[in-house]
Amino acid sequence: MTEILRLSSSDADFDARLNRLLAFEAATDDVIERSVSEILAAVRLEGDAAVLAYTRRFDGVDAQSLAELELSKAQLAAALASLPVAQRTALEEAAARVRSYHERQPLTSWDYEEADGTRLGQQVTPLDRAGLYVPGGKAAYPSSVLMNAIPAKVAGVRELIMVVPTPRGEKNPLVLAAAAVAGVDRVFTIGGAQAVAALAYGTQTIPQVDKIVGPGNAYVAAAKRRVFGTVGIDMVAGPSEVLIISDGSGKPDWVAMDLFAQAEHDELAQSILLCPDAAFLDAVAASIDKLLPTMPRAATIGVSLAKRGALIRVRDLDEACRIANHIAPEHLELAVHDGDALLPQIRHAGAIFVGHWSVEALGDYCAGPNHVLPTSRSARFSSPLGVYDFQKRSSVIRMSKAGAQRLGKVASVLAHGEGLQAHARSAELRVEAD
Amino acid sequence: MTEILRLSSSDADFDARLNRLLAFEAATDDVIERSVSEILAAVRLEGDAAVLAYTRRFDGVDAQSLAELELSKAQLAAALASLPVAQRTALEEAAARVRSYHERQPLTSWDYEEADGTRLGQQVTPLDRAGLYVPGGKAAYPSSVLMNAIPAKVAGVRELIMVVPTPRGEKNPLVLAAAAVAGVDRVFTIGGAQAVAALAYGTQTIPQVDKIVGPGNAYVAAAKRRVFGTVGIDMVAGPSEVLIISDGSGKPDWVAMDLFAQAEHDELAQSILLCPDAAFLDAVAASIDKLLPTMPRAATIGVSLAKRGALIRVRDLDEACRIANHIAPEHLELAVHDGDALLPQIRHAGAIFVGHWSVEALGDYCAGPNHVLPTSRSARFSSPLGVYDFQKRSSVIRMSKAGAQRLGKVASVLAHGEGLQAHARSAELRVEAD
Repeated sequence: MTEILRLSSSDADFDARLNRLLAFEAATDDVIERSVSEILAAVRLEGDAAVLAYTRRFDGVDAQSLAELELSKAQLAAALASLPVAQRTALEEAAARVRSYHERQPLTSWDYEEADGTRLGQQVTPLDRAGLYVPGGKAAYPSSVLMNAIPAKVAGVRELIMVVPTPRGEKNPLVLAAAAVAGVDRVFTIGGAQAVAALAYGTQTIPQVDKIVGPGNAYVAAAKRRVFGTVGIDMVAGPSEVLIISDGSGKPDWVAMDLFAQAEHDELAQSILLCPDAAFLDAVAASIDKLLPTMPRAATIGVSLAKRGALIRVRDLDEACRIANHIAPEHLELAVHDGDALLPQIRHAGAIFVGHWSVEALGDYCAGPNHVLPTSRSARFSSPLGVYDFQKRSSVIRMSKAGAQRLGKVASVLAHGEGLQAHARSAELRVEAD
Repeated sequence: MTEILRLSSSDADFDARLNRLLAFEAATDDVIERSVSEILAAVRLEGDAAVLAYTRRFDGVDAQSLAELELSKAQLAAALASLPVAQRTALEEAAARVRSYHERQPLTSWDYEEADGTRLGQQVTPLDRAGLYVPGGKAAYPSSVLMNAIPAKVAGVRELIMVVPTPRGEKNPLVLAAAAVAGVDRVFTIGGAQAVAALAYGTQTIPQVDKIVGPGNAYVAAAKRRVFGTVGIDMVAGPSEVLIISDGSGKPDWVAMDLFAQAEHDELAQSILLCPDAAFLDAVAASIDKLLPTMPRAATIGVSLAKRGALIRVRDLDEACRIANHIAPEHLELAVHDGDALLPQIRHAGAIFVGHWSVEALGDYCAGPNHVLPTSRSARFSSPLGVYDFQKRSSVIRMSKAGAQRLGKVASVLAHGEGLQAHARSAELRVEAD
């Protein structure tokens, strides 16, 4: 029997047990913090030389100059050309679909004119330059390159600079191919906190960016948190999660495999099923037992399900939606006969997959929406990565003389109320003008 | 002579001197960090009791229960009714204009259907509950209450909870009146890190919110940074800044007073003028000398101008725009004859005031756009506070059977490429289904 927590919403201590299951706080590690602090300071002071020294030390890559660590567009194109045709086609189709979805997102500038000729608006512009961190090694996901790079390019970011470590010089051709497909402008084979520092502060070779996105290990996450303010950063993600709401329709094997797909990411990943049908829950448990031994990543899946998974019996689907809103899951599958009937009850989730055909794996790769999603209950207040993250707004205020003279009186009253006399005077000067 | 730095963009060391002038980094203070960490832990563990104890200690306010520290809607309405009619009218007109501008912002949900019946979209929902921090004492600005609360209410936030400390029980009627005008739902007279903790974690009396916005002192800022993740937060603002681009048209007194209006905020506020006309720069310097002694806050203005202000001669207006984009100022006044001609060259600024009638003070209070703006060069990557900050998006994926079966093959190829076999299998199960 695969170990997985079984709960019922009618248990006396259900709320407390659910909250314990959900609890996750990223530990901050003093050793990592000190190390990252040193690396950031060194790169800020010494630039290229420090980046080269850390790359030699941590990645075992010995270069005389950072220019040597830049990959040409020809090298990216060659990586794409080297792929088996099925992989290349899949990557290109995924990119096209992600682009098509994100092209519906951009904010546009607007303004409006008032009766006295005053015009107010907001001007939307892309970031000048963005940095994309891509992990090396086992967590190197070409799909993440697409999901982070394409919204930036759709937003109109002029220069998108990717950094990806190549420990001992090993390059991942799928990652480089994804960079080619996504239209990444420059690629440097550096990583870790030193790469984050180079992007945040700029060096002799690497220009300063305005925002850094993309996943990374604990050093990268700590570095991103520390450079926030100097540059923008995306969210620092917690473990990945799926919540499945089932009405007892559908196939237990499908539900089990969807839980596995989350659990295989790592041991902290979280897979939870809510269902009012006790027999269906038992059937899913049986499917888990049957299918787990067939999975290449069975060990990771088993630990994840045992530590952080749960099969939860609920009273009905309304209660399931209430619990889902409390959990605010990164991924929510409505594995029910009539998903559209439930959808209006869902207020908080990163991505919502409606109906039995809408499996999370499609969203991870190629449905079109972004797979960078808010984790750890943050869908209560944050959103999937999107074109919005690579645009910013400026308010534009064009006062007419009549508008300035009328509103200047209002501003003067309020400024005096706040004790800010120069504010009041600067408004009054316009009121008093001929 | 008022002390203020004079620079020219043709100076040999201009770039370095400009960057030194702009440099600002919020110091982190270990004493504050330790104190805030303790306060957060205590409120998280003990709830109301800890909030009451800290309120007694820091604000000198002695209450038996947190309920005693809640203000009723009648109390807010009474504060509004108690204002002189000019103040009340000004507050209401400002609120109406801010509301009208922000009502043009909300994102709306959308979806689209593909040929095979697959539907993709994004569902936009408001945050359930937001917290608004309002400082007590000298930095208590009713305009900030309007600017933070109105976008939340326009977004559809169900419950907006304001906290405002009342040291020794002193309430600010303008602040309470602004809360009434803006439609704040509940108000507690608590402040400091303990108020941030109460909003972030919830207590017996105060419900947990999803996001905390609003300015505060160093303790409040540190507390907000620490609870980020548990709840959303707005940006942590640096000193306020204005950059004025002048073409030498307009009145030196107006420019001088607009520089003062920024400088009067505090000694770290920054006021910079760019102009190609040396005679006009001299005239502004003369206006500064003439007008400064007339200002009630002359001491603060003088220190701010001396420490962080500058009058800079530039070659021409194109260069002024390039420098403005480098500075990415919080407030940018285009104090020129033809502001619309310059506007397309401006890529990075929080709010842009076009033409001589568009004075920042109007934007601070009543033009309509938000006065909560990105500082310290962060307009390169961030935006004014808006309705967007109180909404979030969920991706919605409704695959048709045909869509799932076609894209399932794409996902399978990519998942195998990433070594995620359960992802591949969960897609393949749909491909294989009858």
